[in-house]
Amino acid sequence: MSDSRPLHFTVIGAGAWGTAVAVHLARRGQRAMLVTRRPEHAVTMQLARENRDYLPGVKLPETLSVTSDLRAALLEAEVALIASPSHALREWCSRMQAELGGAGQLQLFISLVKGLELGTLLRPSEVMAQAFPGLNVATLTGPTNASEVAQGLPAAVVLAAARPGEFVDRVQAAMSGSTLRLYTSDDLAGAEYGASLKNIYAISAGFCDGLKLGDNSKASLITRALTEMVRVGETLGAKRETFYGLSGFGDLVATCHGAWSRNRQFGEQIGAGAAVADLLAGRKTVVEGYRTTQALHDLCLQRGITAPILGEVHAILYQGKKPMDALMSLMTRELKRETHSPFPRK
Amino acid sequence: MSDSRPLHFTVIGAGAWGTAVAVHLARRGQRAMLVTRRPEHAVTMQLARENRDYLPGVKLPETLSVTSDLRAALLEAEVALIASPSHALREWCSRMQAELGGAGQLQLFISLVKGLELGTLLRPSEVMAQAFPGLNVATLTGPTNASEVAQGLPAAVVLAAARPGEFVDRVQAAMSGSTLRLYTSDDLAGAEYGASLKNIYAISAGFCDGLKLGDNSKASLITRALTEMVRVGETLGAKRETFYGLSGFGDLVATCHGAWSRNRQFGEQIGAGAAVADLLAGRKTVVEGYRTTQALHDLCLQRGITAPILGEVHAILYQGKKPMDALMSLMTRELKRETHSPFPRK
Repeated sequence: MSDSRPLHFTVIGAGAWGTAVAVHLARRGQRAMLVTRRPEHAVTMQLARENRDYLPGVKLPETLSVTSDLRAALLEAEVALIASPSHALREWCSRMQAELGGAGQLQLFISLVKGLELGTLLRPSEVMAQAFPGLNVATLTGPTNASEVAQGLPAAVVLAAARPGEFVDRVQAAMSGSTLRLYTSDDLAGAEYGASLKNIYAISAGFCDGLKLGDNSKASLITRALTEMVRVGETLGAKRETFYGLSGFGDLVATCHGAWSRNRQFGEQIGAGAAVADLLAGRKTVVEGYRTTQALHDLCLQRGITAPILGEVHAILYQGKKPMDALMSLMTRELKRETHSPFPRK
Repeated sequence: MSDSRPLHFTVIGAGAWGTAVAVHLARRGQRAMLVTRRPEHAVTMQLARENRDYLPGVKLPETLSVTSDLRAALLEAEVALIASPSHALREWCSRMQAELGGAGQLQLFISLVKGLELGTLLRPSEVMAQAFPGLNVATLTGPTNASEVAQGLPAAVVLAAARPGEFVDRVQAAMSGSTLRLYTSDDLAGAEYGASLKNIYAISAGFCDGLKLGDNSKASLITRALTEMVRVGETLGAKRETFYGLSGFGDLVATCHGAWSRNRQFGEQIGAGAAVADLLAGRKTVVEGYRTTQALHDLCLQRGITAPILGEVHAILYQGKKPMDALMSLMTRELKRETHSPFPRK
């Protein structure tokens, strides 16, 4: 029988997903703290018992503490979860390092981040491991619309750790309930590459929506995207089967279809004629897929990986290529046998 | 260079999909005939130059002949395509046999049918091969909402033949245009099992919609469905990779999300509380997934294949189990590692 005492969890970053996870942990009877970036956001949330900016309508459990005091929040934390945009991850890690000195009580550091770091092209857990060498790192990922999880609707996710084992199993048990189910995995790279790539393909699915190309072409594009995801991921050292699971296929399907998906919406607006720069300027939340497209494009170039869909998304977002031209060039290639080449090659 | 003279195509069955394919062939400059079951339907369509019952709003090209005279339609046909419900396929084949004697000019007989034959548990191409031994048989399948194909929106499909080769390549070239792209495959069994199974899983996705369980749980269910589809299909002799292509994954994704999908709609209505018998009594079109659930359930029992989602869909449709109970029993199983068992076992 594993240890069933509550664990001390600290969730860093009070966006929609960080808040939903913290709410879930508190409801599960775990000791949960939520850390905001801005002090005033913590105060507002404590007073309103609600995250009106990012997760309106969800009451915060009484047992959930909200603070901007990172040091206090980490003092007793056995598990830290970080839910920041990928570009803010390194700075959060530096702050944590400065506040904690070493890893403190921490036994597991879990990323909720979906994207690579621009420049270094590192996965979130690699950035985290640089800040805390020796600490076990993991990612929690899968099809998870924050609002649904906060409403207590059923969902299943993957907890992929660098070093699976007894403590990870204990975290799995502590976080799993009748609605949110966690499955463990030892393919951390696969889970993180899947989570990053799916945002790019969700943008491309959004182009189909914006151009009103219909469900047939969107399904064909997503089929090619899965094949491309597997190929890119395998070349980067991930396990093929991970991409057919919740963190790959599952998250891809949800993000390409969910009306709520920011990445899909972003693609849809561009498909319908909006300018990329205008869309980026007008947003208060981050479209992870935008930066991730650049990062993965750079990584594929560096490693000599062919990724036609990624290439076309990059051309649209960064080189002003028209979405219709890009999609038609993906669709009208020489006829092939599907078993040999279900996706077009450059 | 392959022979580019037009081919003689006859499409049997004037439902939405048969009509859309015939319209596409005529637009491509092929010699196309469309055969209706009822003489009066042929007359109405000839007069209106439109299939008002099943594909309203699409003008039939002048060069498309519509008839109920099967013998005349088959006289010069080099390629026959059959678009009937699975339960009507054998009778059509018997009629064709009686009218043609042998195979006549036919060089390829393509199924557009998605389901197994109840009782015999044969795939459509196996039923067709029994009627025409020696004739090359094939299936054309993938994510294909008929109305979108008829509107000329882009789509990609798989043409899987028992004996690939030069003539199949010629049919591929004849049918492919800038909007509808055909990819060939030699995994006929995989393409047909994928097409049958996806309707069952689309019904289960519909349950999620009807029960308003959200996009996360629907995506988790579809992820498990793909894994189950691969496992069932592989055990039945199909190739694993086929299920990750257009005829498996692609069609699954489209059918589980398309507002137009009859199988998904059927599941949604049941999820929302409607009685199966009432829904079946009130329909003029066929829900293939309903019969296919029985056929594949029988086949899995016969072959000792574990298929929990299929089992729960069967229990809901044929044994009156409540959709919520079935879905919750799928979702709340012992926690597992995803890489070892991404789907629950019975």
